[in-house]
Amino acid sequence: MNKTLLVQGMSCGHCKQSVEGALNSVEGVSEVSVNLSTGEVNVSFDDNKVTTELLEDTVEEQGYDIVAS
Amino acid sequence: MNKTLLVQGMSCGHCKQSVEGALNSVEGVSEVSVNLSTGEVNVSFDDNKVTTELLEDTVEEQGYDIVAS
Repeated sequence: MNKTLLVQGMSCGHCKQSVEGALNSVEGVSEVSVNLSTGEVNVSFDDNKVTTELLEDTVEEQGYDIVAS
Repeated sequence: MNKTLLVQGMSCGHCKQSVEGALNSVEGVSEVSVNLSTGEVNVSFDDNKVTTELLEDTVEEQGYDIVAS
């Protein structure tokens, strides 16, 4: 499954890395890409293992806000 | 000795941490504080061990530009 989260507050390469790293470490997530300009975070995952809520929580734990998902 | 570098490109807490961490690991540096709003990086150091150029190079290695020092 594919989902795009709209995330607020990612300002630099470190932010990108921390969000990508955290999402990639969630079991069932297979691909993550962060677009710093738009704030879009695209995630590919196995929806038998991962919920959208878990993805959102993972991003928020890194200190960013979810605007839409 | 005390020196304030004016640094461009530090946008978030990660940036602050990377600059502070890199400068603190220079032998002879005793205190570092980064002001993200102004871009000012204040460094206390032993000028028998550390040159301003070394401080500048250390910041630049983290990916930021020195505007003034």
